[in-house]
Amino acid sequence: MTTVNRSSYKVVGTRPIRHDGADKVTGKAIYGTDLNLPGMLWGKVLRSPHAHARIRSIDTSKAEAHADVKAVATYRDLANVEDRIEEVGEDVYTSMKYVRDNILASDKVLYKGHAVAAVAASSPHAAEEALDLIEVVYDPLPAVTDVDSALAENAPILHDHMTTASFGDDSRSGTNIASHQQFALGDADKGLANADLVVEREFSTKSVHQGYIEPQNATAWWHPDGRVTVWCSSQGHFGIRDSTSTVLGVPVSQVKVVPLEIGGGFGGKLSSYLQPLAAVLSRKSGAPVKMYMTRAEVLEATGPTSGSRVRVKIGVAKDGRITGAEAWLAFEAGAFPGSPIGGATACMFSPYDIENVRIDGYDVVTNKPKTTAYRAPGAPLGALGVETVMDEIGEKLGIEATELRMINAAREGTRRVDGVINGRIGMVETVEAVREHPHFIAPLDRSGGKLRGRGLAFGFWRNNAGPSNVIATVTPDGKVMLNEGSVDIGGSRPAVAQQLAEVLGIPVTSVNPQVMDTDSIGYTSNTGGSGVAYKTGWAAYEAAQDVKRQLIERAAVIWETDAENVEYADGGLSHRSDPELRMGFAEIAPQLNATGGPVAGRGSVNPMRGVGGSYAANLVDVEVDAETGKVDILRFTAFQDVGTAVHPSYVEGQIQGGAVQGIGWALNEEYYMGDDGRMLNSSLLDYRMPTSLDVPMIDAVIVEVANPGHPFGVRGVGEANIVPPLAAIANAIHDATGARMSELPMNPAAVAKALADA
Amino acid sequence: MTTVNRSSYKVVGTRPIRHDGADKVTGKAIYGTDLNLPGMLWGKVLRSPHAHARIRSIDTSKAEAHADVKAVATYRDLANVEDRIEEVGEDVYTSMKYVRDNILASDKVLYKGHAVAAVAASSPHAAEEALDLIEVVYDPLPAVTDVDSALAENAPILHDHMTTASFGDDSRSGTNIASHQQFALGDADKGLANADLVVEREFSTKSVHQGYIEPQNATAWWHPDGRVTVWCSSQGHFGIRDSTSTVLGVPVSQVKVVPLEIGGGFGGKLSSYLQPLAAVLSRKSGAPVKMYMTRAEVLEATGPTSGSRVRVKIGVAKDGRITGAEAWLAFEAGAFPGSPIGGATACMFSPYDIENVRIDGYDVVTNKPKTTAYRAPGAPLGALGVETVMDEIGEKLGIEATELRMINAAREGTRRVDGVINGRIGMVETVEAVREHPHFIAPLDRSGGKLRGRGLAFGFWRNNAGPSNVIATVTPDGKVMLNEGSVDIGGSRPAVAQQLAEVLGIPVTSVNPQVMDTDSIGYTSNTGGSGVAYKTGWAAYEAAQDVKRQLIERAAVIWETDAENVEYADGGLSHRSDPELRMGFAEIAPQLNATGGPVAGRGSVNPMRGVGGSYAANLVDVEVDAETGKVDILRFTAFQDVGTAVHPSYVEGQIQGGAVQGIGWALNEEYYMGDDGRMLNSSLLDYRMPTSLDVPMIDAVIVEVANPGHPFGVRGVGEANIVPPLAAIANAIHDATGARMSELPMNPAAVAKALADA
Repeated sequence: MTTVNRSSYKVVGTRPIRHDGADKVTGKAIYGTDLNLPGMLWGKVLRSPHAHARIRSIDTSKAEAHADVKAVATYRDLANVEDRIEEVGEDVYTSMKYVRDNILASDKVLYKGHAVAAVAASSPHAAEEALDLIEVVYDPLPAVTDVDSALAENAPILHDHMTTASFGDDSRSGTNIASHQQFALGDADKGLANADLVVEREFSTKSVHQGYIEPQNATAWWHPDGRVTVWCSSQGHFGIRDSTSTVLGVPVSQVKVVPLEIGGGFGGKLSSYLQPLAAVLSRKSGAPVKMYMTRAEVLEATGPTSGSRVRVKIGVAKDGRITGAEAWLAFEAGAFPGSPIGGATACMFSPYDIENVRIDGYDVVTNKPKTTAYRAPGAPLGALGVETVMDEIGEKLGIEATELRMINAAREGTRRVDGVINGRIGMVETVEAVREHPHFIAPLDRSGGKLRGRGLAFGFWRNNAGPSNVIATVTPDGKVMLNEGSVDIGGSRPAVAQQLAEVLGIPVTSVNPQVMDTDSIGYTSNTGGSGVAYKTGWAAYEAAQDVKRQLIERAAVIWETDAENVEYADGGLSHRSDPELRMGFAEIAPQLNATGGPVAGRGSVNPMRGVGGSYAANLVDVEVDAETGKVDILRFTAFQDVGTAVHPSYVEGQIQGGAVQGIGWALNEEYYMGDDGRMLNSSLLDYRMPTSLDVPMIDAVIVEVANPGHPFGVRGVGEANIVPPLAAIANAIHDATGARMSELPMNPAAVAKALADA
Repeated sequence: MTTVNRSSYKVVGTRPIRHDGADKVTGKAIYGTDLNLPGMLWGKVLRSPHAHARIRSIDTSKAEAHADVKAVATYRDLANVEDRIEEVGEDVYTSMKYVRDNILASDKVLYKGHAVAAVAASSPHAAEEALDLIEVVYDPLPAVTDVDSALAENAPILHDHMTTASFGDDSRSGTNIASHQQFALGDADKGLANADLVVEREFSTKSVHQGYIEPQNATAWWHPDGRVTVWCSSQGHFGIRDSTSTVLGVPVSQVKVVPLEIGGGFGGKLSSYLQPLAAVLSRKSGAPVKMYMTRAEVLEATGPTSGSRVRVKIGVAKDGRITGAEAWLAFEAGAFPGSPIGGATACMFSPYDIENVRIDGYDVVTNKPKTTAYRAPGAPLGALGVETVMDEIGEKLGIEATELRMINAAREGTRRVDGVINGRIGMVETVEAVREHPHFIAPLDRSGGKLRGRGLAFGFWRNNAGPSNVIATVTPDGKVMLNEGSVDIGGSRPAVAQQLAEVLGIPVTSVNPQVMDTDSIGYTSNTGGSGVAYKTGWAAYEAAQDVKRQLIERAAVIWETDAENVEYADGGLSHRSDPELRMGFAEIAPQLNATGGPVAGRGSVNPMRGVGGSYAANLVDVEVDAETGKVDILRFTAFQDVGTAVHPSYVEGQIQGGAVQGIGWALNEEYYMGDDGRMLNSSLLDYRMPTSLDVPMIDAVIVEVANPGHPFGVRGVGEANIVPPLAAIANAIHDATGARMSELPMNPAAVAKALADA
């Protein structure tokens, strides 16, 4: 279903071949490790063998004496944040130290794999050899690798300065709680007290990784003028520039980051790891330095998303109307503060209009790599709780699942727990899309005594925007070079180009989008928060308007008239009062140089309001093997309100990709930790992500409720789709077996146990 | 002397360290042959051993069968211009064929070194080996390698279609005259008839090469989507893009040219040679292909400037006033039409205000590499004639040289032979600068019987502009990234950055200029015609104004007022009525993202009027060795009106560089041709350019007559300085020896002969 007036668009809503497609399928696209520079060295990282230890000393002298070693770096070569305490204050110092210490540890190592030193040598082998020559003396400490043990009394404390004092506790004992946040609307206690039925459940989940195929990489060249160029794949080279500059202690304009193609990110490539190391090794050696991670390094030293413990309590009246709700969530942050707890608390109840609600969220440090964003960060864990409880409420009240949602659905004008008053949103339309779908209408075949079940769950992601800049230049042969600052992960080149082409009324094949380095385009925020088609599409819209204005002026010059007499429509210019005077885009393009010089249009945005949230639903049929507990996905339909689908194929791809990652998270993926705090499954053989053999074709259903906060009605599309799968599959397993699953992953062992318990 | 109001500028007129300096002096700058790409092949060119021959056949089959050879190309792989005759007409076809055939010969080879085929192989050695396997059958023809033999009766004709018919000759015999042009003002015959004194002289000169240190190079990668990227050094990657697209027969937007640093050009790097070959070899092999020339290839197959024959006749009244003038010039074009005859004819008489003048110029094809631009193309050869004759007139009339110039000096409002009415020009000021200079005032020491003399000559170059585009983005730390399309040969990065900094009132060290590829900036015309500081400086001025306008709007947002209440001055913003409200550039910079997104300013220009011509004078003292004829330069002072000197150090460098090239041209350089049409001195040992041991320090005197046709009064500075040296040295030799030199080079043999003749 769509509220979008399709007939008003010629390019938006079509499915052109992506501009970078040919290069990618033929292996010509340049990824991080394809780069080679004259005199280039190879960098490697020495990592902590301990999950938690105090560093007594680091002796790099033997490594430095190695004939092939050109530079060795420790935290002393990074920004001396200690000297700036007085200048910046304790809080800023602490956050700077966190950032710096996650690049190279100073006083403590906080997880197995934590970087301690880095080496640049003339070959990767020599660099590895040199790592063995670095002598680090550790005082090992007991480790905590999940929320429960981190919150336990007398738990080992990761950060000495982190105390209960910040939560108003006079006794000021050590804590692993980095922060506590609360959202409250109305009176949750009263709302729950007024309920006819209250359901409360507790859930626990494990750390999971984004699982991108391309490992982290960085090549850096520190030039003698003090500027450093860094080449790497990332989800936002401006963000990498900024964090690299912080870690190095140099101004941002001295760091140039050149984006290379990215082999998957899903939030995990927003953070710097190797970039500052390659830079500092280049500064010390005078040569370019290339680094990349092994798969084990990726899993052990880059951000997974949080393991969690979540409690959800929802009270409803007999008619299904929610009277009150309450949630308690504790998320693993990993070694440094910053779990996606805020994403979970802000989004978990947002599909619904609830008057009385209270949510407490805790950010808990543990001896694991610092968590980073993972697709709709935190939201799937909140939705797991809420949607499982909603399923149980529906079951207990005898209200059909979509009916229960429709009764409580958030609508335009209702208030979200984070205070936002909903604009034009698509929750109701998403519920309706589910109801109308053949999958929903067709009964599940439960014949033959098979344990089959159907589950439904909803989810919400708020989406995000940020600053973005587009420069569009017109070529003499009538094409447009579209220069943007948004890294393209999932097909944003065409999606942005389509919006520019729509304004100018030219084919999208006439637009050549190109992702520029940080020196070559205005500040552009990360490719994250499902923001690129929204913000950079909007910047392209503005740049196209700027081109249009200039073309009108040029046509006026050519026709010797005033600009007011010239009109731009349908990809061409016309004189308002002389029907003979018409020029197509390709006709005026070669005349620009002679009428004032080349035409470059600029578009800058930082949309503060108008970012439209996105609602998703999953309908899933499963079959559970009664003997082994293995869950097979029989049919999976994913619905999502995406606003206007600019390039429906890539929207469908995003919906399918999110669903598959949710399936992996639900059924198999986990950081399997040993008692000593080490990850025991740090390879893709043992860290089991779904393959094409594990999942059926995901049927993606696009719901289009145009977002009034965007020129073309665009909403973010990339994340909401990972929110419902965890709960949808849990609900389906319940439908198949009667067992309520409360722990992830729901792997064969866990499901078999639940079957035995039930 | 200066008419520039220096006190009004803070940045323009200063001498900052160039932004690319550190990289260049430490060897980190990336030049053409520094580039390496994955799977890269090496390309080599098979060249004609004959100066003139018909190609009967080219058989590449044996080369193609070579195990290490990945592609072989002949003209058949380039644009099939023959098929387009009917579409484009005979004239366009012919000019397309010229361009194509100079890249790879089709029916004829026209000079020794003319490219016939190209090979890409997995090593340079294999590529060279494969060249020997290509079998070309030639029918050799007699060759003409200078103007006289090309114009002789029954001369071998280079181009069959070139006939006297185009000059209105019914007999339609073959000719080597490609074109004839005439400039006329008033009645030259009458003017000469009215003269009290008429002096006529004839001059002949040899081909000379630009002599840049870096040989031509190109690396190309043809991508499977049909777009090709070419990396190379050049004097204008947009020009290279356009000519490569013509030769390949693909639209310009499918060719992306990435500029690398350039090791000298002087006009010689405006043309394509290897770029289309690397591209086509990449298309055929599917791999990137790198090519570069040897020094012999540079001398034998890239454009020198013309050898010439020039006759000049000037008539004057007794008071020194010129009554009439006439000139006849024939310039070697090399193998294809296009000598710089127009530069000579337009500029030769321009230092003077002459009512009656006629100039006939002939473009003559010869069996030598096609000429390309060389610093003030053609003008030195015209000035050699005019300024030697003027010297003789002064001598004969007993009018001192500067006085003779002052009597006849061109001034604002006088008309040039090319029809241009002079704007505010600096001929008079340049003459005055000579008169005031200690070198002019101090008598030459002629003691000890040494053959010493002093010569003076003037020269003019019209300068040029063209389209240019600048994009300037503001970084959060208060710097500006300046993206331009002008290749930096002689320090234009700082000169352009200074103009942007001047507008914004920020230090030039806060500006980071960067030369962008053809996809990443609007069309920018070549770095030639001394145009960059003028046109791209102006584009930077406009981009800075655009930044300023946006900063005013942002300050208005921050101060919650209207933009009209905000003023930008002295590098900061202030509220017109509230003196408390002030913000420096670096203060507002971090607030831009939050007030509407990043700020990018755009500037586009194509100045049609206002390009100010530049006058130069050389005062030179020489000593001639009576025995050997060797000429030593004792003292050399070069004067030039440069408008406002943006970066005086680089202006001085340009003046000095032009003078030194003029000295080489005057005294030593020449293409020494064998009877078989081969160049006999195709190495830098035998083609003798001046070294630091051959020339004294050149004293550069900047004359600043601000150009009203530019926001900062800028004129082009890079070329006028090569115009006077040829004549100045000839006049000095005359002053020393009494001999009037009429042939270049004035090498020891020639001077000794002149001494003997005199």
